[in-house]
Amino acid sequence: MDLDPSSALVLFSGGQDSTTCLAWALSRYQRVETIGFSYGQRHAVEMEVREPVRRAIAGLSVVWANRLGPDRVVSLDVLGSISKSALTADLPMETRPDGLPVTFVPGRNLVFLTFAAIVAYQRGLKHVVAGVCETDFSGYPDCRDDTVKALQVAINLGMEARLVLETPLMWIDKADTWRLAESMGGHALVDLIVEETHTCYLGDRARRHDWGVGCGACDACRLRANGWSRYRA
Amino acid sequence: MDLDPSSALVLFSGGQDSTTCLAWALSRYQRVETIGFSYGQRHAVEMEVREPVRRAIAGLSVVWANRLGPDRVVSLDVLGSISKSALTADLPMETRPDGLPVTFVPGRNLVFLTFAAIVAYQRGLKHVVAGVCETDFSGYPDCRDDTVKALQVAINLGMEARLVLETPLMWIDKADTWRLAESMGGHALVDLIVEETHTCYLGDRARRHDWGVGCGACDACRLRANGWSRYRA
Repeated sequence: MDLDPSSALVLFSGGQDSTTCLAWALSRYQRVETIGFSYGQRHAVEMEVREPVRRAIAGLSVVWANRLGPDRVVSLDVLGSISKSALTADLPMETRPDGLPVTFVPGRNLVFLTFAAIVAYQRGLKHVVAGVCETDFSGYPDCRDDTVKALQVAINLGMEARLVLETPLMWIDKADTWRLAESMGGHALVDLIVEETHTCYLGDRARRHDWGVGCGACDACRLRANGWSRYRA
Repeated sequence: MDLDPSSALVLFSGGQDSTTCLAWALSRYQRVETIGFSYGQRHAVEMEVREPVRRAIAGLSVVWANRLGPDRVVSLDVLGSISKSALTADLPMETRPDGLPVTFVPGRNLVFLTFAAIVAYQRGLKHVVAGVCETDFSGYPDCRDDTVKALQVAINLGMEARLVLETPLMWIDKADTWRLAESMGGHALVDLIVEETHTCYLGDRARRHDWGVGCGACDACRLRANGWSRYRA
C-alpha cells in the first residue's frame, strides 16, 4: 500500500484542539481528510459543529479549500457497551464529577487512533494527526507521548505500514494553542475557533464568553478560558 | 486498578485455536472469562458454536467448570464501515479469493486485542489470551509476535496497566496445536475440538471429515486438515 507523503488524516471533533490540528495539517499537506467518532453523550453537539467548522476553515483560504478532502464519521457507540457501567453494576449518574459521561472508557484514544490509522492506511494517507496533549490535560495516559509513539510502532508492525502519528499540540499549553492558530491563520482563524468550535463537556451552546460558547464551569471550559486569558494577556 | 494475577480473558471465537487457548487458560488461571467479536459474514456460524463449546469444555472437568466465568460478545460491525469496500469503490464479490469477506480490514486484530484489553482492565483480568500464530498462518502482520508485544506496551502505557498479552500458539504449528490440546485435556478435549469447534471460512457445517466439519477446500479447512493428518501420523 503506497501512502502519499503529502497527505494526512486529521482526527477532527469540532473542538479547539482538533480544529487547530486541521489548520496545521492544511498548512503543510496537499491532501487532508478528516475523521470523527460518534459515541456517548457528547456526540450530538460535537457532530453538529463539525461541518460548519470545516466549511469555515475552507472559507479562510483558497489553498486550504483545495486541500481539504472528504470527512467521515465512524460510529463507536460500541464503546458504551464496554464501559465500566455496562460491564459491572449500573452506575446511577449520567455524568461523573469530572464532567465525563459514565460511558467513558479507559484506553479510548487507543481505539480512536487505531481506527484512524486503519482508515488512513486504506485511503493512502501517510500522516494521522491528533490533538492529544500532555501539557494541560492530565489524567489521560492514552494521550501521552509515550503511548502514541508505542502505538505507532504497534500499528505499523500490525499493518506493515509506515504511517506517522502526528501530535502537534503534545507539548504546548492552551495559550500556545491559540498562538499556534494565529501563526497559521491569523486573527481570522482565531476568531473562527472562538465562534465555531465546541469544547464544553456539558454541550452548552447558549452561554457566550469572549473565548467562545460553553458552560464556563466544566474542566474543558475552564482550560479553554484560562488558555484564552493567558493568550490575550 | 488491581488486576488479579490468576485471571485471564480469552479471545474466543469458537474455532480450534481459540478453544485450545481457552483450555490453556483454564489449565493455569483460577478465573477465566471469554470475549468474542461479531462482525462481517462469518459471525453467524462462529457465534452459534461459542456457547456449546464453552459448555462442552466446562463438562470436561469440574475444576475447569468452576474457573470458567462469563462470556461477552462485542459488536464490531463498524469494521465493515471502514473496510476498503466501504471507503472506496464498490467491490463486486462478497468473498475474496482467499476466502476472506470483502469487509476484511487490515489491522483488525489490533482492534480486537485493544478492545479485549480494555474489557480485561475493567474486569480486573490480568492476562489477555489470543490464539494468534506466526507459524502456519502467513500474511497477517497483526498476528505476529512483534506486533503483539509492541501493542502490549502501547496498551499498558495508554491505560497505566500491567496487562499481559499471552499467545500460547504463536510459535507452534497446527499439528502441535492438536498435541497441546491432548496434553491439557487428553483425547476428550481433542474429540471435543473435532466435534464442536468451527474453523471453515465459508461457514460449512454440513460436510464431516475426521478433523471436524467444514468445506475442506478453503485455506482454514486445509490448514486444519493438514495439521490433523500430521498430528495423527
